[in-house]
Amino acid sequence: MSDFLVGNLLYGQSGGPSSVINASAYGVISEARKRSSIITEIYAMHHGIQGLLNEDFIKIGDQPDSQLELLPHTPGAAFGSVRHKMKDWRVDETDYIRVIEVFKKYNIRYFFYNGGNDSMDTCAKIDEYCRHVGYECRVVGVPKTIDNDLPVTDHTPGYGSAAKFIANTLMEISYDNDAYPKGRVNVVEIMGRNAGWLTAAGALATHHGFGPDLIYVPEIPFDVEKFKKDVKKVYDEKQRCLVAVSEGIRGADGKLIATVGGRKDAFGHHQLGGIASTLIRIIENDLGISCRAIEISLLQRCASHLQSKTDVTEAIDVGSTAVKAACKGQSGVMVTIKRVSSDPYIVKYSTVPLNQVANIEFKMPRSMINEEGNGMTKEFIEYAAPLIEGGCKPVYRNGVQQLARIRYDEDDD
Amino acid sequence: MSDFLVGNLLYGQSGGPSSVINASAYGVISEARKRSSIITEIYAMHHGIQGLLNEDFIKIGDQPDSQLELLPHTPGAAFGSVRHKMKDWRVDETDYIRVIEVFKKYNIRYFFYNGGNDSMDTCAKIDEYCRHVGYECRVVGVPKTIDNDLPVTDHTPGYGSAAKFIANTLMEISYDNDAYPKGRVNVVEIMGRNAGWLTAAGALATHHGFGPDLIYVPEIPFDVEKFKKDVKKVYDEKQRCLVAVSEGIRGADGKLIATVGGRKDAFGHHQLGGIASTLIRIIENDLGISCRAIEISLLQRCASHLQSKTDVTEAIDVGSTAVKAACKGQSGVMVTIKRVSSDPYIVKYSTVPLNQVANIEFKMPRSMINEEGNGMTKEFIEYAAPLIEGGCKPVYRNGVQQLARIRYDEDDD
Repeated sequence: MSDFLVGNLLYGQSGGPSSVINASAYGVISEARKRSSIITEIYAMHHGIQGLLNEDFIKIGDQPDSQLELLPHTPGAAFGSVRHKMKDWRVDETDYIRVIEVFKKYNIRYFFYNGGNDSMDTCAKIDEYCRHVGYECRVVGVPKTIDNDLPVTDHTPGYGSAAKFIANTLMEISYDNDAYPKGRVNVVEIMGRNAGWLTAAGALATHHGFGPDLIYVPEIPFDVEKFKKDVKKVYDEKQRCLVAVSEGIRGADGKLIATVGGRKDAFGHHQLGGIASTLIRIIENDLGISCRAIEISLLQRCASHLQSKTDVTEAIDVGSTAVKAACKGQSGVMVTIKRVSSDPYIVKYSTVPLNQVANIEFKMPRSMINEEGNGMTKEFIEYAAPLIEGGCKPVYRNGVQQLARIRYDEDDD
Repeated sequence: MSDFLVGNLLYGQSGGPSSVINASAYGVISEARKRSSIITEIYAMHHGIQGLLNEDFIKIGDQPDSQLELLPHTPGAAFGSVRHKMKDWRVDETDYIRVIEVFKKYNIRYFFYNGGNDSMDTCAKIDEYCRHVGYECRVVGVPKTIDNDLPVTDHTPGYGSAAKFIANTLMEISYDNDAYPKGRVNVVEIMGRNAGWLTAAGALATHHGFGPDLIYVPEIPFDVEKFKKDVKKVYDEKQRCLVAVSEGIRGADGKLIATVGGRKDAFGHHQLGGIASTLIRIIENDLGISCRAIEISLLQRCASHLQSKTDVTEAIDVGSTAVKAACKGQSGVMVTIKRVSSDPYIVKYSTVPLNQVANIEFKMPRSMINEEGNGMTKEFIEYAAPLIEGGCKPVYRNGVQQLARIRYDEDDD
C-alpha cells in the first residue's frame, strides 16, 4: 500500500454508548482535518454499519464547528450507534458487496470504526474483504467500551470515566448511609456481565475512606453462604454495610445468581438488573437486616458531567492515533494504549492486528482481587487510580450541559 | 430577651441527608466563630436530638480546621442525623426535662436545628418549652430538604443541587437513548411522596433540548389510560420516550399507583421505588414496547459531585443568617429565603415563626404544571433555573472526593 492514499474518510460508532466515544470522534475528525491534502472529505455514518449499508451519512464539514467542539463532553453516541453483527463473508457476501459499492461511490479510503469487541470483529471482516477484492482502504478500529474488556490494550477509553462515576457515587452512598445511628445494607448493582472492572472501581472509593465494604465480581464464583457471612461480619461491626456487585456474578456451577430468585417481566424475560434485588431478598430473609437495592443503570455509561480528564484525553488521542496509523499505511489494526509507568502515569499509543482483539474478552487478573474474593488488591488500585484522574469542564448553560447536536437528514446524500 | 445573651451554641442535623446540609453547618460554625465574645463554645450533637438527650456532643474547636473546610462539599449528614418525633410536652415532659437539664449543664443558649418539616416541629416544641420553664435560649430552625416542601421560604437549601443532578442525569439518559435507531421507553423514578418539585426538575433538561418527554408529579391525579396515550403518542413520533415520574403519584381515588402492581418484599412491605417497575409493566403489557425502569434512588440526595453553586451559597447563608438572627434576639423562628427577582436572580434572607412552617407541606402550584398534567410550564422553568446555576469545585484527590471526617468519641463530651 502507498503511504499517500488520497480519498475520503468514513467514521462510525457501534455498540453501547460511553461518555467519551464522541471524544474519539473528535480526535479522528481533528486529526483528519490536518491532513486535508490526502483526506479530502470526512463522512460520518448514521448508526454505524447500518448507515454505511443505507448510505445514511453526513459530511462533517456541513456541521457547525460549535457543535463539533462539544463532542469531547457529549455522552451517548452523537452519530448514532448500532448493534449489528456481520456474517462471515465466505458464508454471505451480500453486505460486503454493498460495502464495497458504497466505498467506491464515495471514494472511501479511510474507514474508522469506534466500538468494543463486536465492532472490532466488523472492522476485521471489512478489512479482510477489502483485501480479498483488492479495494484499497485503510481500516482501523478505535477502541471504546466502559467494560474495559478489550485485550492487548492496557485499558479502554470509556472505562476511566465510568469508573470515576462509580467510585464517586459509591463514596457518596457510603457517606449517606453513615447518617443514621443504624444504617442499612445497601447493595449496589453495577454493569459487567463477564468482567468485573467497573464494579472493582468501587475500591478506589474505599481506598480513600468511604466506599463499599464488599465487592463481588464475575471472575470469582459467587458463594451465597460466604456472602451472608461477609455481610453479617461487616454489619455486626459497623451497623451498616455497602456491597458493590457485578450484574453477571455466577455460582460455582456457572449459573447466573440473578436468575435464582430473579423476577421475570411480562414477556417472561429475566429483568436486567436482577442481582441487587436477589441479594437483598437473601439478606432480609436469612439475616433479617433492612436493605436497599440500588442499580446505577444507564447513569454509569452516560455521566458526561463526571468525566475523567485522563479518559477524555486518551479517547481523543486514540482517535487521532487511528488517523495517523492509517495515513502511515496501516490497516486491519486497532489502536492500543500501552502503559509506560503508573507513577508518574505515562502511556504511549500503538496498534495491534484486529484478529488479536476481536471477540476476545479481557477479564480481571486474579492478582487484582483479594484472596477472599470480596475486595480488590493494591495492584488494582495502582492500575485504576490514574485512569480516573483529573476533572473535565463540561459546557454548562443555565446549570445543564450543552451537548453536541449532530444533524442527520433522511433526504441527504 | 437581651440582645447580648452569652453562652454556648448547640447545632444538630435531622431528617434525610442532602448534599448541602453540611454547608449550612459550615455557615452556622463560621458565623458563630465571628461572635466569640457572646458564643463561647460551639457544640454539635451526634445524630441530632438523640445526641442531645444522650449528651453525645463534640466541641467544634476540637475538630481540625482542614476537616471543617470540607463541610460545604460533603454530602450526607457529617454530624449524624436522626428521625425522632418529639411528643407534645403537655402529654409527656420526660424528654423536655432532660433537654433543659443538658442545656443548663452545658450552658446552651443558642440552639440550631437543621432539617425539614419534622425538624421544625422539634424546634418549635423546644422553643415553646424553654419559654414555658423560663430558660433563656435562642432556638432557630435552619431549613433543609431536597424535597423543597417547606412553606413560606421561596425554596429550601438542598433542592437546587438535587434538581441539578436530576436535570443533568435525565439529559444524559435522554441523549444515551438516542443512540440506537429504535429506542426504548425509559421510565425514571424520582423521589417525592407528595410534592413533585424534584421530578419537575427534569423539565430544565427538556428546556435545553434533551430531557424527559413526559413528567408526572403527585400534585396531579394519575390516569393510567391517559398515561398510555401520552407514551404511545411520543413513541409513535420519536421511536423512543423518556418518562420522569414521582414515586408518590396517586390515582383519582387517592391510592398510590405503585401499589397497584407493586412488589412486596420478604416482610410484606411494599418496596420503595415500585412506581417505575409498575409503569413499565403496564407499557410492556398493553403497548408491547420495550422499556427500562431506572430509579435514581439515593444518588439524587447525595451527589455532592454535582452541587449547584447557588444552592451551596444559600445553604451557607441560611446557616449564618440563623446565627445572626439569634444574636439579635430572635427565637422560635426558621430562616427563610425570599426571592427579590429571578432575572437577575436576587434573594434576601428573613425569618418566619416556626409554627407557620412546622408540619406544613409546600406543594407545586397548579400554574407550574401544564394543562395536560404531563409536563411543566414556563413559570416553573423561571422559578427553578436559577437554583441549579453555577458549578462548585469539590476537593478531589486521586479522582475521588475528599469528604469531611467528623470524629465522635463515645467517651468524649
